[in-house]
Amino acid sequence: MNLSGRALTAPASPIRRMIPFAEQAMKMGKKIYYLNIGQPDIPTPRVYFEYVERYKPSVVAYTHSAGLLELREAFSRYYEKFSVKVLPDEIIVTNGGSEAVLFAMAVVADPGDEILVLEPFYANYAGFAAQLGIKLVPVRTYPEDGYSVPDKKKFLEKISSKTKAIIFSNPCNPTGAVYNESQLRTIIDVALEKDLFIISDEVYREFTFDGCKAISALSFEPILDRVIMVDSISKRYSACGARIGAFVSKNKSIYSAALKFAQARLCPPMTSQYGAIGLLSLDDEYVESIKNEYQARRDVVYEELKKIDGAVFQKPKGAFYISARLPVDNVEEFVKFMLLEFDVGGKTTMVSPLDGFYATPSAGLDEMRIAYVLNCDDLRDAVRILALGVEEYKRKVR
Amino acid sequence: MNLSGRALTAPASPIRRMIPFAEQAMKMGKKIYYLNIGQPDIPTPRVYFEYVERYKPSVVAYTHSAGLLELREAFSRYYEKFSVKVLPDEIIVTNGGSEAVLFAMAVVADPGDEILVLEPFYANYAGFAAQLGIKLVPVRTYPEDGYSVPDKKKFLEKISSKTKAIIFSNPCNPTGAVYNESQLRTIIDVALEKDLFIISDEVYREFTFDGCKAISALSFEPILDRVIMVDSISKRYSACGARIGAFVSKNKSIYSAALKFAQARLCPPMTSQYGAIGLLSLDDEYVESIKNEYQARRDVVYEELKKIDGAVFQKPKGAFYISARLPVDNVEEFVKFMLLEFDVGGKTTMVSPLDGFYATPSAGLDEMRIAYVLNCDDLRDAVRILALGVEEYKRKVR
Ligand SMILES: Cc1ncc(COP(=O)(O)O)c(C=O)c1O
Ligand SMILES: Cc1ncc(COP(=O)(O)O)c(C=O)c1O
Repeated sequence: MNLSGRALTAPASPIRRMIPFAEQAMKMGKKIYYLNIGQPDIPTPRVYFEYVERYKPSVVAYTHSAGLLELREAFSRYYEKFSVKVLPDEIIVTNGGSEAVLFAMAVVADPGDEILVLEPFYANYAGFAAQLGIKLVPVRTYPEDGYSVPDKKKFLEKISSKTKAIIFSNPCNPTGAVYNESQLRTIIDVALEKDLFIISDEVYREFTFDGCKAISALSFEPILDRVIMVDSISKRYSACGARIGAFVSKNKSIYSAALKFAQARLCPPMTSQYGAIGLLSLDDEYVESIKNEYQARRDVVYEELKKIDGAVFQKPKGAFYISARLPVDNVEEFVKFMLLEFDVGGKTTMVSPLDGFYATPSAGLDEMRIAYVLNCDDLRDAVRILALGVEEYKRKVR
Repeated sequence: MNLSGRALTAPASPIRRMIPFAEQAMKMGKKIYYLNIGQPDIPTPRVYFEYVERYKPSVVAYTHSAGLLELREAFSRYYEKFSVKVLPDEIIVTNGGSEAVLFAMAVVADPGDEILVLEPFYANYAGFAAQLGIKLVPVRTYPEDGYSVPDKKKFLEKISSKTKAIIFSNPCNPTGAVYNESQLRTIIDVALEKDLFIISDEVYREFTFDGCKAISALSFEPILDRVIMVDSISKRYSACGARIGAFVSKNKSIYSAALKFAQARLCPPMTSQYGAIGLLSLDDEYVESIKNEYQARRDVVYEELKKIDGAVFQKPKGAFYISARLPVDNVEEFVKFMLLEFDVGGKTTMVSPLDGFYATPSAGLDEMRIAYVLNCDDLRDAVRILALGVEEYKRKVR
């Protein structure tokens, strides 16, 4: 009685791996600043619950498998703001962006096929790939240049007859990079030359700083038929628990195929869909204010991180993450040290080891990710403590 | 730029296939009795919305990937009523029973592997299998004996070195069959002898009639380590749109493997989880009253169907479906006839062709499924019209 190979090889969540140590630290009475998870602290706008209440039906019934038309229309209007023309019947509402990624991979690749991924990448891509029997082939990026898209050559080296698509998030989790037009053109060139699909995960679209804008893969005419755009309300409206995302494609065959998978699982959650209609009715000011908050936090984290001698990173332009190389051999060991052996006045800071965001063996061992999901004061204190921890750890292991 | 094989071979929903004809009938001004879909008409108990309102948090955040502990505790208490001992950490809350089926298949079988399925079966099993690259191998049941479990021999004939599990629903969608202990023992014998997992889909557990009870696969001691039980609040509480189901296993390896898949997709919907805690707090009287309603409906449908000369079926013992062989060559053609060419005083009836619930090529062409999701008066009228339609159709094609 053996489990399947995919069950055995599916990666455990790299973020959750460290939880036991955090629990130990808590038992020791420490206060932990959690900079390790992508769960925003921002309150969810009340309009979510207002719409849930206002629309409550007599029967909480299955909705259309692609989601309520009203919600798809709301998404469609929302995309127009980014000059992206998407019709309601080019959208499938999904159980979070997560399910959109799952559908996207399933539609383009069979078991044994390969998908290129810009590395480090959102760790759960590896989980979906394992579930579907797909191999993720990493194309590496580096902290020295802010984890930007490498030369075309680096992609071509990794392409085989089994390569079907390229996946990436832009703005990027975990790096905070936002790819500019010329970087995106590299990806597009490769896709066109090698006849690949593009899975563009744009769930952090609004969170871009210093006047920089995220460019949707759906704004490039020549690739409209090969793009699957992944979207989500999770981060934009701090509504992660709603589980409302979107699978978007202007290619009718891609769309129909994904819809078959969507029909098999019946529909996304009705109550959350009503809440999401409410959230999508918010004006630009709301998202603007959240973005400003994140930019201020980014600045705080960046300033404080600069005080760590030997840390390697660039000022990230988007999402709510900073990744950096730390002057330590092994960040996982360092995180354990921070939790179990270090504190400043009873307080310590928890970050994510970045190796779990790599597919390349033993890559990223000396890198970490910070999610800036605390207010500026807490962040300043948290990163100050982190910096002190690095000094202490270096002394200790030396 | 080719889509994946699984995208191309995934079946379209057999229920939705007939929708265009229903739309045409509506345009012709006909009133249609919809007996084709498993969407109950019963109002969702208001406690669902009360709990959503009562628990509403400041941040709609990711919950535990296995679901809120409080909800898992509520499920655990609920299972105790059926003398099934399941701990909260043997339960993963899923996006409907649908996702529990997906996880179950993924955990036990790799691409190219086979899963036996009692046929006719819940059509979406085929969708999940296609998504995962798994082959469903049917073991057929027949209307003559109420679609009961066949002899062990029939299973053994279908087993190969690639067979990993047996899946079935009990009470059964689409047949309404409830398997008694001796029928279940046939399945168990096969699983033990051939070292297979058992995926037991028990989402219709409460809906059993004439004093008959559904026996959970988790009440058989010798197979506790090889059972994955699929559950859902969709039908029990008429809360299909909530998307709350459960993956249950007492085998720790199975559980951990499924949890990895659950972690990749982050969590089930928070708002619905709160509503589900409310629903699970309802007392037995609630479910008892719904069950009585379904039994009364079953009786009406059964009595009226008996008036169709040449229809073959037994009185079903559970769920809210009746399947039957009709005295017509092709039920799909017959359904089109009912929608486009027939009516009684402007009214007509829509049922599901059963062939979409079979994997065996051209099986079930002369069978149909009725979902009794209307009140008794409407049902009586609907099945009376169906019977008249059969007579008229027979005259026409003769
Ligand atoms: C890049 C990226 N894509 C997709 C997701 C999935 O989020 P959700 O399923 O909540 O939309 C996340 C969540 O952290 C993410 O960071
Ligand atoms: C036998 C069976 N299993 C599972 C499901 C999935 O339902 P849900 O995902 O709403 O729990 C259904 C729905 O009709 C069903 O009939």
